[in-house]
Amino acid sequence: MNRILMQPEEWNSETDVVLLNDVRAEHMRRVLKVQPGQQVRVGLLNGPTGCAEVLEAGPDGVRLRCLWENTVPNVPRVDLLLAAPRPKVLKRLWAQLAAIGAGRIYITNAEKVERNYFDTHVLEDAFIRAQLIEGLQQCGDTRLPQVSVHRRLKVLLEDELGGAEDTRLRLIADPGAERRIGGAVMSRHPERVLLAVGPEGGWTAYERALFEKHGFASVSTGARILRSDTACIALMAVVYEALEKPDAALDVNGA
Amino acid sequence: MNRILMQPEEWNSETDVVLLNDVRAEHMRRVLKVQPGQQVRVGLLNGPTGCAEVLEAGPDGVRLRCLWENTVPNVPRVDLLLAAPRPKVLKRLWAQLAAIGAGRIYITNAEKVERNYFDTHVLEDAFIRAQLIEGLQQCGDTRLPQVSVHRRLKVLLEDELGGAEDTRLRLIADPGAERRIGGAVMSRHPERVLLAVGPEGGWTAYERALFEKHGFASVSTGARILRSDTACIALMAVVYEALEKPDAALDVNGA
Repeated sequence: MNRILMQPEEWNSETDVVLLNDVRAEHMRRVLKVQPGQQVRVGLLNGPTGCAEVLEAGPDGVRLRCLWENTVPNVPRVDLLLAAPRPKVLKRLWAQLAAIGAGRIYITNAEKVERNYFDTHVLEDAFIRAQLIEGLQQCGDTRLPQVSVHRRLKVLLEDELGGAEDTRLRLIADPGAERRIGGAVMSRHPERVLLAVGPEGGWTAYERALFEKHGFASVSTGARILRSDTACIALMAVVYEALEKPDAALDVNGA
Repeated sequence: MNRILMQPEEWNSETDVVLLNDVRAEHMRRVLKVQPGQQVRVGLLNGPTGCAEVLEAGPDGVRLRCLWENTVPNVPRVDLLLAAPRPKVLKRLWAQLAAIGAGRIYITNAEKVERNYFDTHVLEDAFIRAQLIEGLQQCGDTRLPQVSVHRRLKVLLEDELGGAEDTRLRLIADPGAERRIGGAVMSRHPERVLLAVGPEGGWTAYERALFEKHGFASVSTGARILRSDTACIALMAVVYEALEKPDAALDVNGA
């Protein structure tokens, strides 16, 4: 945990003091080995980051006095539309997605997604939320990705992505595409990107046509076939890098 | 499994026929549901890729006749120097590293690596090899990453990285660095990259100085603190993208 996150209701806004006595307190006591007077990084879920002074650390828990920044971290600039992976893979992916950063995560059905992938606790709200918070505490952000689960890809694309008002650069990862994903992002300087990643067996021709009809440009991901979790992290990292420094390649004399 | 890999000694080079009756045969029968006459993608470990015709698929196994390409895939252009992560994290990382591609993987000790991270089966040759092959079968490559484990970082840097004859672009991931990793790679057009990724607690000042002395340039990885496995995949993906298309950003009018 690189930042201890708390919910607004846990914290007494009059005194700025909070008493934690769950796994977060355990972590502060056993891993960070905090002592009174020491400082730890904190955050309010979907709110500001801050730092806190340890007032007390004992068997009853850890009492902190928090000092908050005036600003709230921006929502991460990449959204992910992901065909439901195997539950075993998805289970481990939530925290990683929150850590690398995602504004919205749409989990969708697709022809090559097995029906039973949806009958799993790893798609239950409480499980997702706990995993996402773990990822946020790892990476230091406070912005909880918004997650939604969609049983019909066509309805998602037609009715639920915001239609013409959606200004995100829409990309669909496609092993066969010519244009590389980093170049596609760098050449467009988008404010936000919505990236679609398919099921392990790929999208069908019908599904690909649907994406194209709804403005998704195909971008290549190289010749290697990656598992859903590896693919999401790799592709999102490349998109973030391209968003961050669109003119990096122009800087050929820097070192 | 997107490519069935076999060892040279499993395959009869006179008849080009191989009989598989382990987990690979199971996969072909139960997941790919192969029938005689059907084709599957195959590869020889550290050798060529190819395609194979299914001659027989039954309870005794799957018999294949292989046809090999004349060329062998190139060694992936990125090598990784990684401070040993927690065994639980490393265990899941091997297959992902092989899938995204690594020529060499150096696992090293560091001051903030716990001693007991080395007392684990996930650093045993047989375990590593099985996991790497799983990753290769996922991604379709045949090149097994070369893995070595180093108990002393100083000895690794001074004596085991090839000294002045090593022409790889050496980069060390550092949350505090100014220069982004993609730009650093794109501006140098290196043939190969050696990327160092630190332990969860970071490198010490002494260790960072050692890396600098041995020609590692610090590159930033953004403000988010990623777990070792997420960091490796994210950073390697960005390096591969930058190696692939060094002039992507110049192509501002393409779409």
